[in-house]
Amino acid sequence: MYNIILKKKRNIELSTEEIYKVIEGYTRGDIPDYQMSALLMAICFNGMSERETFDLTMAMAYSGDMLKLERIHNITADKHSTGGVGDKTSLIVAPIAAANGVSMAKMSGKGLGHTGGTIDKLDSIPGFRTELSEEEFIDCVNSCGMAIISQSGELAPADKKMYALRDVTATVDSIPLIASSIMSKKLAAGAKIIVLDVKCGSGAFMKNFEDAKKLAETMIEIGKRGDRKTYALISDMDQPLGDYVGNRLEVYEAVKILHGEGTEDLMDACLDLSAMILIGAGKAGDIESGRTIAKKTIESGEALRVFKNFIAAQGGDNTFADNPEILIKPTNKIEVKAGKTGYITSIDTEKIGLASMYLGGGRQKKEDVIDPDVGLVVHRKKGSFVNAGETLVTLFSKPLSNTEQALECISEAYKISPEMPSEDEASKKHTLAYLGVEDPGVDR
Amino acid sequence: MYNIILKKKRNIELSTEEIYKVIEGYTRGDIPDYQMSALLMAICFNGMSERETFDLTMAMAYSGDMLKLERIHNITADKHSTGGVGDKTSLIVAPIAAANGVSMAKMSGKGLGHTGGTIDKLDSIPGFRTELSEEEFIDCVNSCGMAIISQSGELAPADKKMYALRDVTATVDSIPLIASSIMSKKLAAGAKIIVLDVKCGSGAFMKNFEDAKKLAETMIEIGKRGDRKTYALISDMDQPLGDYVGNRLEVYEAVKILHGEGTEDLMDACLDLSAMILIGAGKAGDIESGRTIAKKTIESGEALRVFKNFIAAQGGDNTFADNPEILIKPTNKIEVKAGKTGYITSIDTEKIGLASMYLGGGRQKKEDVIDPDVGLVVHRKKGSFVNAGETLVTLFSKPLSNTEQALECISEAYKISPEMPSEDEASKKHTLAYLGVEDPGVDR
Repeated sequence: MYNIILKKKRNIELSTEEIYKVIEGYTRGDIPDYQMSALLMAICFNGMSERETFDLTMAMAYSGDMLKLERIHNITADKHSTGGVGDKTSLIVAPIAAANGVSMAKMSGKGLGHTGGTIDKLDSIPGFRTELSEEEFIDCVNSCGMAIISQSGELAPADKKMYALRDVTATVDSIPLIASSIMSKKLAAGAKIIVLDVKCGSGAFMKNFEDAKKLAETMIEIGKRGDRKTYALISDMDQPLGDYVGNRLEVYEAVKILHGEGTEDLMDACLDLSAMILIGAGKAGDIESGRTIAKKTIESGEALRVFKNFIAAQGGDNTFADNPEILIKPTNKIEVKAGKTGYITSIDTEKIGLASMYLGGGRQKKEDVIDPDVGLVVHRKKGSFVNAGETLVTLFSKPLSNTEQALECISEAYKISPEMPSEDEASKKHTLAYLGVEDPGVDR
Repeated sequence: MYNIILKKKRNIELSTEEIYKVIEGYTRGDIPDYQMSALLMAICFNGMSERETFDLTMAMAYSGDMLKLERIHNITADKHSTGGVGDKTSLIVAPIAAANGVSMAKMSGKGLGHTGGTIDKLDSIPGFRTELSEEEFIDCVNSCGMAIISQSGELAPADKKMYALRDVTATVDSIPLIASSIMSKKLAAGAKIIVLDVKCGSGAFMKNFEDAKKLAETMIEIGKRGDRKTYALISDMDQPLGDYVGNRLEVYEAVKILHGEGTEDLMDACLDLSAMILIGAGKAGDIESGRTIAKKTIESGEALRVFKNFIAAQGGDNTFADNPEILIKPTNKIEVKAGKTGYITSIDTEKIGLASMYLGGGRQKKEDVIDPDVGLVVHRKKGSFVNAGETLVTLFSKPLSNTEQALECISEAYKISPEMPSEDEASKKHTLAYLGVEDPGVDR
């Protein structure tokens, strides 16, 4: 191990054998944390080649179970988001793909800090089971075309152990380490098509486009070397996705989209992600035709039908799907108003996510218990003109909410200026780039 | 701690408070090894400012006992070598300084790997005690002008713990970390004058002049900030210092020098080091006058007299001092001969040190027991012309010696070429630079 650390420190490429030795030894406990953290820090400084990053990913994937999805009838797809605020796309995209004959066998995580997690949103549905055995999981995918379960601890245990160490040694922000952490779980989860939604902006882990692009490209390269059809889009997280933030509130907004209603940016994001999956499955030739198919799947009610079956198949009460208003539970509503007149020039989206967290909709620490009902609705987004006193955000709070902190986050998040935003900024689309597929080049 | 690691990783200067927090926390065991090793690796990449390096040194010094040498009558001096092969200068320089009214209160270490340690050489003297209480130590300095003892574990315990961690995490080769490790012990040991012998070349930790100079300058800066008179010389370790390598053999060569005999390079090194101490004590104005005083101290027999008192004061039998030949014990002698005719263009000095180690004169691991009698004599040094079959080195081995490995080291160490070495190379002095004092600029 000493020589491996020294090699990486001196910026000499590690061999495949060396990388497997490190990951196997660390997973078994033969390599101590203090050597691993030194190596991780050296990787933060010197990076890893594409080959090294792939080897690291595979070594981490092979550290635990590798799911075999052969029993699934159709081509399998998975989708991953790097984490954002208000992102409920999985609940919409998976039914669209499933309705088009692509089996969505998806594992998701829980939210932490300002970012939400799909599992938390699903857990807000009465009766819904996010933990299934491998057999139940596959049966569910075969019966209704999709399943979403909580990620098992047996998947890439090396990643779990490494992530816990990175989290306390300031070695999180390294592209090869982030890419291998995500992709090790995706490769172990077995799906043939992998669509990655790499968020970029104030609410995302990657604050700028270049870093997001590098991460996306690194993950695509890993996916390709791992023999998966891998696509990525880089999407804007300079404001929340959709208008609703909070677990049950996000399920509500997802159902609205499946009814063909709801906000444009969220619909747009879902069509793009669906299109990528359809391209991977050979059911669409490009983003534009994939979007058209996805749109029709919503308009025909097919996506909603799959969604209802999926909720029921995993034990949930799906009556809300026809009557989403029942998801809006009684809470204390607080309107946060604009302090001055002008254009909204920026929204610190991390602060919006933190506001929801302080209300009780997210976790500060992994052990925290969340309240499914709290959250917030964003009424005004970037570029809008607002008059002083107009409502920007409505908070949905409960007695246990830390409303004061949430209010502070919201008021700090919004920047209002008398100057109109530049045309570049105003015309910014939600999807900033499509990677792994041809850029459609279509102005929508 | 997380934020401190992150700051250093992002190359932001740490505050004095942060550095003390790290060292105190790590010494107490509140900061785990895995966070410390991540920080150390970040320091290897991003370095430390002079202020940070000094703070680190002081925090490490204050982690344990700080010796107060007030009871010592004369001005106190200490000398440190960064580790070489055949370096027995402490045994010569300390008596010279003591004979001139400078109290040498010196703590030394044991040898490891290819480098020797002064304590091992002294331990080869029957009866000599290298472990004294603080009181005995000070009494000894007051009675005979000098004492050399084994470094106590209570001195800079933070350094001890950090060094053990650096040793297994490939974070040794960082100038601020090396400098603070050495200087924390020197500052804690209390002497007012600190003379540093920074070795440079194939037998030294620092392989090139620039690194050695940077290390020396960093240590001088720390010493000055710590209110000590600090000087350094950079000396050549591209060949062993003197001709004898091995513990009792090196005591033999030191006594020869004290008798005014012995090899020129060793004498030269001792005069330079002595001169620096005398400058620090205000007893010489420059290197040249310091050397003259030192030389006279040897010629008058004063240095030898102090040496004899010192050996006796620490319990040793000093009869060898008048009759050094008794130090050469019966061993098996093996002559290593030149394989071809030509000039000796280079000697891999680390390999010479390792040869002595394999014979049993050094330690591969800290726990190894050494044999004081084994070692080697170097007959031909760099630049010499040798005929094939001429003896290069004589090995002094014993039945437990790994003679085969030692022979291999020697034959690999010598490079013999038909071409004469360049004039630059041939005229290279043992002392390559004087730092902290004016360069004497005298061609000797």
